[in-house]
Amino acid sequence: MTAPNRPVVIREVGLRDGLQSIARTLPTAHKLAWIRDAHAAGLREIEVGSYVPPRLLPQLADTAELVAYAKTLPGLVVSVLVPNLKGAQRAIESGAHSMLLPLSASRAHSLANLRKTPDEVVAEIAAIRAERDAAGSSCLLEVGISTAFGCTIRGRVEPDEVLRLLRAVLDIGVDRVGLADTVGFADPKAVRDLFERGFAIAGDKLACGHFHDTRGLGMANVFAAWQVGVRRFDACLAGIGGCPHAPGASGNVATEDVAWLFASMGEPAGLDVGALLALRARVAQWLEGETLHGTLWRTGLPKTMRAPA
Amino acid sequence: MTAPNRPVVIREVGLRDGLQSIARTLPTAHKLAWIRDAHAAGLREIEVGSYVPPRLLPQLADTAELVAYAKTLPGLVVSVLVPNLKGAQRAIESGAHSMLLPLSASRAHSLANLRKTPDEVVAEIAAIRAERDAAGSSCLLEVGISTAFGCTIRGRVEPDEVLRLLRAVLDIGVDRVGLADTVGFADPKAVRDLFERGFAIAGDKLACGHFHDTRGLGMANVFAAWQVGVRRFDACLAGIGGCPHAPGASGNVATEDVAWLFASMGEPAGLDVGALLALRARVAQWLEGETLHGTLWRTGLPKTMRAPA
Repeated sequence: MTAPNRPVVIREVGLRDGLQSIARTLPTAHKLAWIRDAHAAGLREIEVGSYVPPRLLPQLADTAELVAYAKTLPGLVVSVLVPNLKGAQRAIESGAHSMLLPLSASRAHSLANLRKTPDEVVAEIAAIRAERDAAGSSCLLEVGISTAFGCTIRGRVEPDEVLRLLRAVLDIGVDRVGLADTVGFADPKAVRDLFERGFAIAGDKLACGHFHDTRGLGMANVFAAWQVGVRRFDACLAGIGGCPHAPGASGNVATEDVAWLFASMGEPAGLDVGALLALRARVAQWLEGETLHGTLWRTGLPKTMRAPA
Repeated sequence: MTAPNRPVVIREVGLRDGLQSIARTLPTAHKLAWIRDAHAAGLREIEVGSYVPPRLLPQLADTAELVAYAKTLPGLVVSVLVPNLKGAQRAIESGAHSMLLPLSASRAHSLANLRKTPDEVVAEIAAIRAERDAAGSSCLLEVGISTAFGCTIRGRVEPDEVLRLLRAVLDIGVDRVGLADTVGFADPKAVRDLFERGFAIAGDKLACGHFHDTRGLGMANVFAAWQVGVRRFDACLAGIGGCPHAPGASGNVATEDVAWLFASMGEPAGLDVGALLALRARVAQWLEGETLHGTLWRTGLPKTMRAPA
């Protein structure tokens, strides 16, 4: 287990991964309140949106405004998803602290979603790094390797191919990499195995676990990743997110549930779980009619919580 | 890790722990179909009901009929919950293979639920063992130590007290013991710690993990218990069960999700997950209007499942 005592960081990705999968556009005022209250609850990293063309994802068209606001909150790392060089230019201009660059390990999935092979995406990431450096920007480059545990089109994705891509983006000089199961193929054994192999290659640069609860294993996967040393996780309040091809499918692990996992285990994450539950209730109001997920909200925190260990 | 290659056994407890928390009475014909199809899907242990007085739980009044039917299914271990000596006599008469004897580790919870202290319950269990032996019955005695990780009334429950009770029932000569979190206080760290300490005392006689998903940690707790050697778990189809004091609270871990966890990890459990999902759909029809749980059913099995490891 690497550095077991480092605190856990949860990155709230509901405003991006969550809202991109919901057809309605949440008003900017609600998004600003979401960012404000998430920060107040102790979250110190938020993915506020995505620099994809607004015609593709009109729900996220206000990303620049959200970045500008989020940057005013003390100690908050402001992250945006960036699909290509043009998006990276916008991220650099907006002064986001971190950009998430998706890279699908499945060739079939990558071609279907981005019309590029994984290696073509790696080449684009190299161009983004050159652009970032040329601009004198300190924006962190983080690659999220998706379909790292399997893919809805092809099924099995070879771990060796995931690790080859991990090496390739490290060679380019990205700042950190995460492994993502956005489609519900991961299980705790596979998570342990792949992250252990990944740490042997990337060390601390392997720095994010992104799990969906598509088939009920999301929280077990978070725990398994934590056991082998992962200390940074993506999550969405109310477990939104999920798969546009499977309506109703469970989405990302729920921020409030992941926060409770670590609070309950006595692992420091700096979060006020009660405040997260209160924000979750507001998000649920804003998104009334959408299928939400997560479990802790049903019962809430124990009234008679045992003393911390 | 003790004996990691032993197959996993899931005991379906929906007919008891699940239905006792639902006000309506499921017709006996549906219960018989549930038992038949659960057996057909590969489940080899089912808790079919409870010998509590029918005026307390009219939903379970047909337990003797269910035991008689379940005993006709080849290879099926038929289990019933027994709250006291009188119930034990009925279990012995009916020829159930196993009786589950609940023992709450929290004195406050035990007094509130059973009007007996834990030690008075231990004394009753001793009387049940004597009765069983005097009757020449081979019915297995299994104690389920509930509130083993915390209690809604008192909060913290001391692990030392749980282990004292574990020793006490082993001294009486019960056949096996399980540790249960029916109220959502367990977390994976606490599960590992308590089961490891329990195995040191009870060895293979510590033989069941019973987890509810009250606060989202159910599946992570199952995985954590499996990691330290637990190979037998209680679960309810559709995640029914839960707490009569918290309507809508998530119930037991869902049988189909637990089955998928082990199938996905390549751990043998002898289950047809697709058949479990089909049965889950029938149970959901029978229980229309009730709050059900579990996750796998939303998306189903992957169409392009990767080859087994």
